[in-house]
Amino acid sequence: MKITKPTLLIDRKKSLANISEMAKKAIDSNVNFRPHFKTHFSAEIGNWFRDFGVESCTVSSVEMASYFIANGWKDVTIAFPFNPLEATTISELASKAHINVLIESEESLTLANELLSKSVGYFIKVDIGTHRTGVDPNNQSLIEKLVEGSTEKIKFKGFLAHAGHTYGQSEEIEINSIFNKSVEVLTSLQSKFGGLVSYGDTPSCSVLNDFSAVDEIRPGNFIFYDWMQHQIGSCQMENIAVCMACPVVAIHSDRDEAVIYGGGVHFSKDRVLEGEDPCFGKAVNLKEGVWDTQVIGSVKKLSQEHGIITMTSEKLSQMKVGHLIGVIPVHSCLAADLQGHYLTTTGDRIEKMAKD
Amino acid sequence: MKITKPTLLIDRKKSLANISEMAKKAIDSNVNFRPHFKTHFSAEIGNWFRDFGVESCTVSSVEMASYFIANGWKDVTIAFPFNPLEATTISELASKAHINVLIESEESLTLANELLSKSVGYFIKVDIGTHRTGVDPNNQSLIEKLVEGSTEKIKFKGFLAHAGHTYGQSEEIEINSIFNKSVEVLTSLQSKFGGLVSYGDTPSCSVLNDFSAVDEIRPGNFIFYDWMQHQIGSCQMENIAVCMACPVVAIHSDRDEAVIYGGGVHFSKDRVLEGEDPCFGKAVNLKEGVWDTQVIGSVKKLSQEHGIITMTSEKLSQMKVGHLIGVIPVHSCLAADLQGHYLTTTGDRIEKMAKD
Repeated sequence: MKITKPTLLIDRKKSLANISEMAKKAIDSNVNFRPHFKTHFSAEIGNWFRDFGVESCTVSSVEMASYFIANGWKDVTIAFPFNPLEATTISELASKAHINVLIESEESLTLANELLSKSVGYFIKVDIGTHRTGVDPNNQSLIEKLVEGSTEKIKFKGFLAHAGHTYGQSEEIEINSIFNKSVEVLTSLQSKFGGLVSYGDTPSCSVLNDFSAVDEIRPGNFIFYDWMQHQIGSCQMENIAVCMACPVVAIHSDRDEAVIYGGGVHFSKDRVLEGEDPCFGKAVNLKEGVWDTQVIGSVKKLSQEHGIITMTSEKLSQMKVGHLIGVIPVHSCLAADLQGHYLTTTGDRIEKMAKD
Repeated sequence: MKITKPTLLIDRKKSLANISEMAKKAIDSNVNFRPHFKTHFSAEIGNWFRDFGVESCTVSSVEMASYFIANGWKDVTIAFPFNPLEATTISELASKAHINVLIESEESLTLANELLSKSVGYFIKVDIGTHRTGVDPNNQSLIEKLVEGSTEKIKFKGFLAHAGHTYGQSEEIEINSIFNKSVEVLTSLQSKFGGLVSYGDTPSCSVLNDFSAVDEIRPGNFIFYDWMQHQIGSCQMENIAVCMACPVVAIHSDRDEAVIYGGGVHFSKDRVLEGEDPCFGKAVNLKEGVWDTQVIGSVKKLSQEHGIITMTSEKLSQMKVGHLIGVIPVHSCLAADLQGHYLTTTGDRIEKMAKD
């Protein structure tokens, strides 16, 4: 395996184990497993799910829906508020696959009815505490109008929620509490208005086991995991299935720093805080495409192409210019988005969706 | 002009004015103008520089060097520490164009000598206070060795510095002070060891006028500018030549927020702080591809595809789902990197370097 520049390595075996674990939970809970494909952006990796009986997926954009439908997916939820400007493309896709969109206002529903030319399903997005998007579940009059707005063109399917606020947690008990509260809200809406309940987010789906209270789960990140999920407690280091191979290009022993080729254009600038200091990734030893699970350093700065890793002088003394080091990304979805392709730990190239 | 999803708009006229201004400063100072192309990643935009007499450019990766050399550039400095793992590609490029790389250790210089098969120039990277990369200018014995290591294969060209610490400044006097101190350090090395002095960074080159003390300037971001540069004082709102057109997909009047289609995969997650709060971009009105210079809101959160803009309830009342809003990116280089293509304000598609 000849790696010369920052390259996202994917451990297929670990990814399959992560899929297997989640698929088993879904089967045991008797819920539909509709994994979010916004983490891997890859038709080939999407196919890995098929062996576990997965036939539906979630995406976060119409562009991504087009890509996966072109690659054979027939049941796709675009988990993003309906964008009227893309109504024509959504209609085209709806002639090839079953499409669901999210609705959270009367305005959007009216526009969907006016602009779509093919039948599309909709979930009412419910804000269960993240306060990013969605309808306030206490606003029953709005929810009633949104349910009643169902037509042949745009058909009510149920209620969908994303517990994004689990990302701020690191205790199973807190994640469980968010899940229980959310389920109470969502199933109460369901018993009043009917439809399905779709629930998602990697922390909840990783930490908890019983999802029988809902109809569908939509985790995405779990296929790879990353340092952020590790900090939340969603996974162990052993479960993380991605690592960026980065060339070491300079060593500054006086300040215990190694400079790597690997920057914001490879990792994005997502971060976790360690005290007051940002961390953009964790360094691990890498050999023949396989990485250790022991952290040996921390990416404390990223510029466009450079990363600065701090480590003990002992660890640093083992680094050499021209060697490769592994970096566990803070956020694997955004790191994956930035790649032209991936490489498996056994050296196979994996293609992914290209940006238009 | 039909825009349906997040699209980076480029004002060609403003970009040309920014290039013209910088080219004039270089001519007046009698220095070589070697603009950094890591901001636009585009052969077509690279060509805009040619009308101003520019014949050399700077890039931040070997990949980018390959792209611009394939598009006719014959004199390219890869302003990044020499990566021994890419020696073969660098040698191939050196058979088509004049290439300079950066060296900051004896180890790298030895490896360059061993691994390169074609003649390449090198600048000694000098750390003038950013403490990211480079040689301590007080380490005269190392610098002497690095100069003396010049061979036919890898030829000493001079000293290069990037004043990245100007990005933390917002006063002309501070930027001027950094420039004067850097010039003193660099010209003192030059008088002792010979070679050229190459200096870069958009804040210095925008705020200051006289560069006659150095031989070359390498600013990059100035072609577009962005909100970060505006905060530093490098430009006025009128000079910013890029704006992301983003569909409005939801409005939450109760918390004065609009949700846009436009997230971390479009802007990156670079930020500026406003007090304790991060800002990921500034919202402006947008009409027929042309944006206002008056800020009407602030992007306070970004997730993968969503952006959350806060604005006054008065401004928010004018927003509608299905309309486009403009967002001035915090960091135009990283936003540009994330696009598949750009669109000019007059609706022309501009191609850019694709990721392999």
